[in-house]
Amino acid sequence: MTDNDETLQVELDERSYPIRIGTDLAVGCISEADRGQRALLVTDANVEPLYGKSWEAKLDALGLEVRKETVPAGESSKSVDMAAKLYDAAAAAGLDRNAIVVALGGGVVGDLAGFVAATYLRGVRLLQVPTSLLAMVDSSVGGKTGVNIGAGKNLVGSFYQPVEVIADLDTLASLPEREYVAGLAEVIKYGIIWDAELFSKLEANMDALLARDRDLLGPLVRRCCEIKAEVVAIDERESGVRAILNYGHTLGHAIEQVCGYGGWLHGEAVSMGMHYATALSTKVKDLSGEDAGRIDALLSGCGLPLVPGESGIPGDWSAIRAAMATDKKSQRSVPRFVLAEQIGSVVFGCEGAEDELETTYRERFT
Amino acid sequence: MTDNDETLQVELDERSYPIRIGTDLAVGCISEADRGQRALLVTDANVEPLYGKSWEAKLDALGLEVRKETVPAGESSKSVDMAAKLYDAAAAAGLDRNAIVVALGGGVVGDLAGFVAATYLRGVRLLQVPTSLLAMVDSSVGGKTGVNIGAGKNLVGSFYQPVEVIADLDTLASLPEREYVAGLAEVIKYGIIWDAELFSKLEANMDALLARDRDLLGPLVRRCCEIKAEVVAIDERESGVRAILNYGHTLGHAIEQVCGYGGWLHGEAVSMGMHYATALSTKVKDLSGEDAGRIDALLSGCGLPLVPGESGIPGDWSAIRAAMATDKKSQRSVPRFVLAEQIGSVVFGCEGAEDELETTYRERFT
Repeated sequence: MTDNDETLQVELDERSYPIRIGTDLAVGCISEADRGQRALLVTDANVEPLYGKSWEAKLDALGLEVRKETVPAGESSKSVDMAAKLYDAAAAAGLDRNAIVVALGGGVVGDLAGFVAATYLRGVRLLQVPTSLLAMVDSSVGGKTGVNIGAGKNLVGSFYQPVEVIADLDTLASLPEREYVAGLAEVIKYGIIWDAELFSKLEANMDALLARDRDLLGPLVRRCCEIKAEVVAIDERESGVRAILNYGHTLGHAIEQVCGYGGWLHGEAVSMGMHYATALSTKVKDLSGEDAGRIDALLSGCGLPLVPGESGIPGDWSAIRAAMATDKKSQRSVPRFVLAEQIGSVVFGCEGAEDELETTYRERFT
Repeated sequence: MTDNDETLQVELDERSYPIRIGTDLAVGCISEADRGQRALLVTDANVEPLYGKSWEAKLDALGLEVRKETVPAGESSKSVDMAAKLYDAAAAAGLDRNAIVVALGGGVVGDLAGFVAATYLRGVRLLQVPTSLLAMVDSSVGGKTGVNIGAGKNLVGSFYQPVEVIADLDTLASLPEREYVAGLAEVIKYGIIWDAELFSKLEANMDALLARDRDLLGPLVRRCCEIKAEVVAIDERESGVRAILNYGHTLGHAIEQVCGYGGWLHGEAVSMGMHYATALSTKVKDLSGEDAGRIDALLSGCGLPLVPGESGIPGDWSAIRAAMATDKKSQRSVPRFVLAEQIGSVVFGCEGAEDELETTYRERFT
């Protein structure tokens, strides 16, 4: 532990775990008793050259026998096939039930390695080391793991909590601009669904935000993790309120699926999805035009897309509608939305009339 | 519910569920509120012609929209690839989080469909309908699901409890002789690990047992399920005592793996594994020669193999030893055994000296 460590706790009884946010963070979950245990360090081709060696060395210094597996960067690695390759690697490395899987990277690596940790030997320990903004504030916390199949995103996975999350703020400096901005979509999401004050803080500090000002980012990452930890502690397996974390994700996932994973980054697709959900909220809920305007302005102000533009998505509503039907929140093929009543307050499980869904889509996206 | 229904309860707090044992059993877990929900009925090519249609009709009569998927019979269907095919089928059938997966068949179907239910949409309801003796007394109860990978059996899976188990004793009559006998291995196991009285009852009723006498089988299946439910309620995720259910399985799994799945049935491999564990127990523990003799006699009396014989397994100790190292109970590649102190009482987590392991193997198997 260092002076730079700010630790939050996700409270889930015997599955509780700390999120450490700071720099030069120590690994809390590996003890002297773990000497000689196996570790599978999963990372991707973008992150490996930056942090692969140092994490290998760090785990080695803790006495673990480390095997590193580097998957191609990008959403296409979140597949059943890639999970199968990692299972084989885990077996070759001799992982047993006391072993640990370390997910070093962004959301793709965290979701994939998390799924492998959840299912190898019916579950081994998982350490999340998020290196992207999106992974720090969202995907590494809360225990959702998953891979994609042809029919849709994250359709296969499990709820499986890590034993620890280590968010080293230094890694944010190395993030490509597009990745960083995409991560801001999830940060803005927390303002919309839970915390109007956070939303205002983002509006007021746009320059510092885009400059990745450390004094702003530290508390920001912490606040987002606090919100997520609070929501997850109430509803770990998404039988209710946890669904609000999916604001913008119903259309967002559909865009990713229709365009092929990799066309748009997840955060970009969610940004467009939030623009859509916001527009829908002004019609179906009481969201004011003013609040809707502020949401759109904050998204575009950060450089996030509201609509696909020329490079676009298939403007075809029927393809988008079909993709939304396979969303995990759908019931009997009817998509269910999270909609906003005002900034800081949303409701989940909204169905929205078919013609509203289509009209709103056509108005904005075609 | 009918007069023929004897219901046991597996007590796991909010994951508790009933095991119904009898004939003409009703499905308790599907209610009026489920009308219109999707069901994925998974079965295999042996079971489908016998019970596929009637279960399709039964689910249909309950108002479910049923899609039936028939996988090839045999252990080779317990693969990541086959799980991926079922994920695609689940998506094509429009399964949502209120859907139900029905596993109609023996251990292979139960483990495979169980894994799919555990991981599709991060978990949908699972109804186990075991049609083999082995599945009724063992694999359908307790929530272990899994598939095999090249490196070993059940190395991928999750702990995931069904919402109900329906064991129709009528299906035992149609079981091929070899399958039925293989199932007896797990029945005998319960006598060894937990219940000396059950063991004596089996010895005393060998003829009725082999004749599949219904008056014997009903109470027998019930007693085995009771024991399993009791053990699982104490230790759902096998951090301790649940390991005793693996008596004979350390070598058993290794034999299956070295011979290729399908060479020996699981129960046959476990029978040889129990013969080995029993021999080891007379050396490493205080198991008497008399008790060891009774175990061997009961296994062979049922027509179960003690040793592979001519048709055999590779007598090669090093291959068997390497396969045992990847067993899920291994720690740092050292296999751990369940060993018997007397009939009805075993201990788990025994390491056994390397030379004892090898000598005992060579004495018996080569």
